Formats: sequence, structure tokens, C-alpha cells
Amino acid sequence: MEEKFKIDVALCPVLYDQCKMDNSIVVVIDVLRATSAICTAFESGVKEMIPVSTLDEARVYHKQGYLVGAERDGSPIEEFDFGNSPYSYKNPELKGKSVVLTTTNGTKAINMAKDADVVAIGAFTNISVLSEWLVNQDKNIVFLCAGWKGRFNLEDSIFAGAVIERIGINSKYDELTDSCLAVKSLFINAEKNPYNFLSSSSHRIRLHKLNLKKDVKYCLTYDQSTSIPILKGDKLVKLEEVYENMAS
Amino acid sequence: MEEKFKIDVALCPVLYDQCKMDNSIVVVIDVLRATSAICTAFESGVKEMIPVSTLDEARVYHKQGYLVGAERDGSPIEEFDFGNSPYSYKNPELKGKSVVLTTTNGTKAINMAKDADVVAIGAFTNISVLSEWLVNQDKNIVFLCAGWKGRFNLEDSIFAGAVIERIGINSKYDELTDSCLAVKSLFINAEKNPYNFLSSSSHRIRLHKLNLKKDVKYCLTYDQSTSIPILKGDKLVKLEEVYENMAS
Repeated sequence: MEEKFKIDVALCPVLYDQCKMDNSIVVVIDVLRATSAICTAFESGVKEMIPVSTLDEARVYHKQGYLVGAERDGSPIEEFDFGNSPYSYKNPELKGKSVVLTTTNGTKAINMAKDADVVAIGAFTNISVLSEWLVNQDKNIVFLCAGWKGRFNLEDSIFAGAVIERIGINSKYDELTDSCLAVKSLFINAEKNPYNFLSSSSHRIRLHKLNLKKDVKYCLTYDQSTSIPILKGDKLVKLEEVYENMAS
Repeated sequence: MEEKFKIDVALCPVLYDQCKMDNSIVVVIDVLRATSAICTAFESGVKEMIPVSTLDEARVYHKQGYLVGAERDGSPIEEFDFGNSPYSYKNPELKGKSVVLTTTNGTKAINMAKDADVVAIGAFTNISVLSEWLVNQDKNIVFLCAGWKGRFNLEDSIFAGAVIERIGINSKYDELTDSCLAVKSLFINAEKNPYNFLSSSSHRIRLHKLNLKKDVKYCLTYDQSTSIPILKGDKLVKLEEVYENMAS
């Protein structure tokens, strides 16, 4: 019997250790807002993004002249160029640039997944291109929900559920784990109106208090980007660039 | 402003550390089947149940003449008196007896919660009496889902969701966390037919392979018990006994 590929979801970062597998693509998810912002930046044509975990690392790059986006607790850190609002990255002037990014949750999750075979960035903003690509790879898939300060959150889970729903029943994959079934079920409840579904969620409330309603709506809008950012060494680049280099 | 009580859900045991709080009742949940079996045993009139984590501990009690229930990976361990099928505990001969229990997940979760203010046992079999009692206590509530070998499972989560749904919008509690919102949403999908909802879940499949369909159906049937088992020292006793002792 042919061995099937597996799909699993780390509902929050602490659970990643339970879920990681060999030969896998880890999809890092931080819908509000890091991974949405990253997809937007690539849509604006950035050359690469460098995710770093600490403000100190970001400062080193900033001194070297890099553009730096930095967010903590939902707010931008003033000394840098941007926060993590996707709107800051919707900017044609970013074309060809290298941008460093550090956020409360998302960039830490990216660095946590570093040892995986492939690390990809997922958000509603690139859901279609990402889902289509995933099912065409012969790899296990692990969704890593960045959550909020290590805790479970709703928005990252429903995104994982949305992708699993799109993958559908596909004979190349094993039976879904309970975590996969759960996020799929959550997505079904959220699907008609994700914005309303998240109305009581802690991070939507947090961002509303910061007047970031527009950001939340943007992050929940499908397919504003055709980029799949992939980690290559310490940098995120466009999928195409990874393939070019593999071919060479 | 009066301080409100909090409700949280540890979606699996690893997450308990993030969720535990002072002044709280921890509701340990292992729907398939440990906590369902425990409720049934108290309905049969057992005096107390002693949850132990290892088979070696169970053997020590067994040698001393205690009745012992022991399960690993869904099957009873032959050298002891029962496994963890609730039907084994539906037995009038258990009246007044002390029973030792060790299971793959549930008894470990009970022991994990030992330091909490109050540890209560929850299952669909005692959901009404438990939910009513919980809202009448002035305490925080933490639902601890035992899961399967440390991993998330669906059945424990939907039970937590079912109790949160019953607690409803109650001004004595803080806003629900994202974990609470998630399990409530899962329960809403499961409510009409929990048995079908769990049809693809890993443990229902595991128990079906062991011909335990009848057990699964029993564990998903509401209100077969009016007991709330509470941990007192190292033993589970009926709630009433804890109160009697507090009064004396």
C-alpha cells in the first residue's frame, strides 16, 4: 500500500513539537496581521523579507540601512519604518527592497519552523494560490498557528480550516487528525462572515481598540496576493525564486 | 468595578499551564471514556475512586485487595478487575466500595490538576448537574481536556463547549477566551448528533475497531448520573461528601 501524506494543525505554537514531521511543508499563519502583511509586501514586489524575533535584532539591521517593520501588542514601534499593518506594505516604492520584520507572534512562529523542509507563509490574502500549490507537492503539511503570545486564537485556526476545506477529500492524504477536523468545523461556521465570526475574538477586539478595523477587514479578504512567500535560509522570498535556484 | 470570574479551556493537557488560575474549579474531561465511567461508578454508589497514573501504582492497590479498573490504548489490562467501559461500573455490587482507576489519559489529567482549588469530573453523563453547580460557585473555571496521549481530541472539546453554552452569557464571567469561543462553536456543530459529528474522530474510530460502539453511544448520552465527583486529597468522592466535611 502506498504511504499517504499527513496533514496536521498546531493549534498554537506550544503544540508544534507534537505536530512536526519529516518531509513536510510548514504553513505559518498569523492572519492578524503578520502573514497578511508579508503576502502584501511580496505583492508590492519586495525582493525579500527577513523575519527576526527580537527588537534588538531588528535594530542591528536598521542601523545597516534596512527598512524595518516592527510591531508589539498590536502597535508599531516608533523608531522603525512601519508596523505590521498590511496597508504599510501596499506601496510600490517597496519594489526590489529587502525588508526586515519583527512582530509579537508571526515572526517568532516563522523562526520556530526553520528546521522544516519547506516553510511557507499563509493568509486569506493568498489562500487560493497557496492551497493549489500545497496539494500539488508530495509532502506532509503542518499548519502552524502563531496564536497570541503562545495561546490559541480563532483567526489562525479558521484559516487552517479554510485551506483544509479546499484540499478536500484527497486520496493522497491520510485521514484528518482531530485538530484538522476541528479547524475545518470552525471554518464552516465562520465561512459566511468571518468578520462577524471573529466579533468576540480577543485579537479582533484588541485591534478594534487600536482603530484597526480596516486592517482586520483587509486581512480577511481572499486573494489579494498571488505570492507564496517561502523561507530560504533566513529570508522569505517568492516561491518562484526558490524554484529557479533549485533548477540552476 | 467588581472583578469578574474567568472561564478558560485547556484544549489539551500541554496547554493546562497556560490556563490554570488561582481560585478555580478545574473540570477534567475525558469523555471517551474515563470521566464517563467515573460518573457511572458514583451513580452505582461507589464510596470513592482513586485515580492513579501508572499500572505499577494500580498493582500496589490491587495487592492490598482494592478493586482496580485499568485501561491502556482503549483495552482493559487483564490482570485487573475492569477496564474503563462505563458498563463495567454500572453495577450495584460496587455500592460502598473503593475503586482504583488508571487510564491512558483521564487519570493522568486528574493528577495534573491536583493543585487546583477544586477538581471536578465532567462528562455528558453528568452535564446538567455539573453545569448548574458550576455557575453557582464563585470561582474561575478551567476545562481541562484530557485528549489522547497529550494531543487534542474532538470529544473532550465539544463537551467543554456544551457546558460553556449552558453557562451562557452570564455577567459574573469575563469575556470568553478564543479557546472557549472555539469549543462552543464546535459544540454548536456537534449538538444535533454528536455521534455523527465524531464519526471521523480518531478515538471514535479507535473504539469502533475495538467493538466499543455501545460505549461511545453511552458516553454521549446526557444526564445518566446526578453525581459530581470531586477530588479530595488523592481520592474522588461525591460532592456532597466534600460539603459535609466542610460544614463539620
